[in-house]
Amino acid sequence: MNCNLLHIVFTVCFVSSSFFGQSENQINKSKIKYYNGDLFLLEGSAFTNDVKENRYQRLPDKYHGKVRDLVWDLSKCSSGMSVRFFTNSTCIYVKWSVVNSSIANRNHMAATGVKGADLYFKIGKEWQYVNTARPNGKDFEELLVANMDGKRREFRLYLPLYIELADIQIGVEESCKIEKAVQDSRKPIVFYGTSITQGGCASRPGMAHTNIISRKTGIECINLGFRGNGKMEPELAEIIREIDAELYVIECLPNMTKQEVLERISPFMEILREKRKSTPVVFVENLIYEKSYLDNKTMQSTNEKNLALKGEFEKLKNDGFKNIYYIDGKNALGEDHEATVDGTHLTDLGFLRYADFLIQNIKKYKLL
Amino acid sequence: MNCNLLHIVFTVCFVSSSFFGQSENQINKSKIKYYNGDLFLLEGSAFTNDVKENRYQRLPDKYHGKVRDLVWDLSKCSSGMSVRFFTNSTCIYVKWSVVNSSIANRNHMAATGVKGADLYFKIGKEWQYVNTARPNGKDFEELLVANMDGKRREFRLYLPLYIELADIQIGVEESCKIEKAVQDSRKPIVFYGTSITQGGCASRPGMAHTNIISRKTGIECINLGFRGNGKMEPELAEIIREIDAELYVIECLPNMTKQEVLERISPFMEILREKRKSTPVVFVENLIYEKSYLDNKTMQSTNEKNLALKGEFEKLKNDGFKNIYYIDGKNALGEDHEATVDGTHLTDLGFLRYADFLIQNIKKYKLL
Repeated sequence: MNCNLLHIVFTVCFVSSSFFGQSENQINKSKIKYYNGDLFLLEGSAFTNDVKENRYQRLPDKYHGKVRDLVWDLSKCSSGMSVRFFTNSTCIYVKWSVVNSSIANRNHMAATGVKGADLYFKIGKEWQYVNTARPNGKDFEELLVANMDGKRREFRLYLPLYIELADIQIGVEESCKIEKAVQDSRKPIVFYGTSITQGGCASRPGMAHTNIISRKTGIECINLGFRGNGKMEPELAEIIREIDAELYVIECLPNMTKQEVLERISPFMEILREKRKSTPVVFVENLIYEKSYLDNKTMQSTNEKNLALKGEFEKLKNDGFKNIYYIDGKNALGEDHEATVDGTHLTDLGFLRYADFLIQNIKKYKLL
Repeated sequence: MNCNLLHIVFTVCFVSSSFFGQSENQINKSKIKYYNGDLFLLEGSAFTNDVKENRYQRLPDKYHGKVRDLVWDLSKCSSGMSVRFFTNSTCIYVKWSVVNSSIANRNHMAATGVKGADLYFKIGKEWQYVNTARPNGKDFEELLVANMDGKRREFRLYLPLYIELADIQIGVEESCKIEKAVQDSRKPIVFYGTSITQGGCASRPGMAHTNIISRKTGIECINLGFRGNGKMEPELAEIIREIDAELYVIECLPNMTKQEVLERISPFMEILREKRKSTPVVFVENLIYEKSYLDNKTMQSTNEKNLALKGEFEKLKNDGFKNIYYIDGKNALGEDHEATVDGTHLTDLGFLRYADFLIQNIKKYKLL
């Protein structure tokens, strides 16, 4: 069965009025049927026609060995992905299991962001948050919402940001229907970057900026954020150029030294442009770390990296590269200095501000 | 030595220019001297003249046995407290240990919020965030900031929200001075409520709404939030009335049933007014849980509780109670439905919006 083409309708639903108004513990669990997430539309995943050992890894198997082991391991995280479906069930469960991994050990990020999942529903053209599945152990099951009116609605379940997902299943009343959502036709935006790009430290997956931008613009976003390892390496340019994108957003600076910035941007662009002659490329500055307002050395180091980026960017333009854009990081997180959990990684507050900032800047360049 | 009165100056500082610009790992740890947090100004702590087994517990020992065990256990968390000091050190370390407790097991809240600490500095009349100490195990030590210019500044270290703090120490260069900050004279605002009041689920202690409100208004806030146990019990009215407050904010509804709302508010106010004839009391509605927009039963239950609160509030007014105020919860968290981690508990985004919402409403009533 080709799940990419088939609009799946499992069963006709007879909405039972007895379901309406029932409380969580009144639900008859034996009447819940689980469907594997593989059956539904997966968004935020590139290379969908290539072989992947696991549907929720970000790079296909053919790149194993091409990228450094650390990048490969991180690429197994389902960051930036979501599953879309329609249902008229009056309740929705989710059941998921994760591969045990030390990647998940983050003391400045809630487990819901690391290995949880959160549900949105579509209302008009907007997506509205419903609830989050909270992880507890290695395998989880959670009732996300109950007592709904049985109308057919579209839902979107965001997948974990910092863990390798083994399996995810969606549970609805067995008497109701569940259908695959239809993919939008527009090309995606590809983000390549660091732990921040990967979603550190959103409280839940839906609040990573790539997911916020996807909701706010209606354009699919591909998250290629690799914690500590977004370093503008040539092999990543070779991989990214395989994705036919609306634009590429490169936000690697926090993982790079000034020297790496000077050495790597030009080769990175050369490789990218071999295949993608005119796809817009947006470079984002290193945001200013909060402690820098007192820590002079950190401020100096960040300023030097940004100056290097700016210099290399101007050189690229002088060398004839077209459709490249530069985003100055000032005020990317507002002016109250409250948007991070550790001066570096963004909270939901920071991600919302950063998403709005990027959208605003990208629109200013008429790229959206 | 009476630490509440004495403005402590430990040593005269000879700021060494060699310290300027040093990187973190260049700091000579043997030149760092630790001072116990007990030496400095503690804010957000009521009953400071009563005996407490631990300085960072919220209720004094005399109430052990008066409140339910669950309330007592939760009262040991240092929620809403901060330590203030001046120093001209070029770096600041923090070292702290926590009492091992299951309270800390929260899968929708970062460990930095549960048992971390975060540092702010004063710039003009504002407090600006610097960095967070990230917990790792039971005893922690962390360099919060380095490479400062050696000017004398005021700092504020927010204490953990969901753990019993055993001990906290502040480390500065031994050649520098560290001084106790001076308490402001204004009466505090007392918040009595639930897990949300206690700070669930801020990413770091400084982002609990009581701490944000304290920073934004310059008024000390006392956090009496007890996870799952803010139930307007008579013994809490007896305790709260002992605090000579600017106003009391009662935000207990998420922990109460409709029946409890109907039965408890009037006796609670009777007890409070026996001692505090005119201190303003502000009641806050149950905020609408996000899943309620689909889950009809949850919406109905919340609406019923809020109607009960409103009804009891009107009765209180008719019964002659003065200086009582009501805050309608609508739009308390903005309009994008993105402000919570689980539809109930606030993220930093939610707390910032909620703090602004409360300040705005309290100012509307001319109570600030």
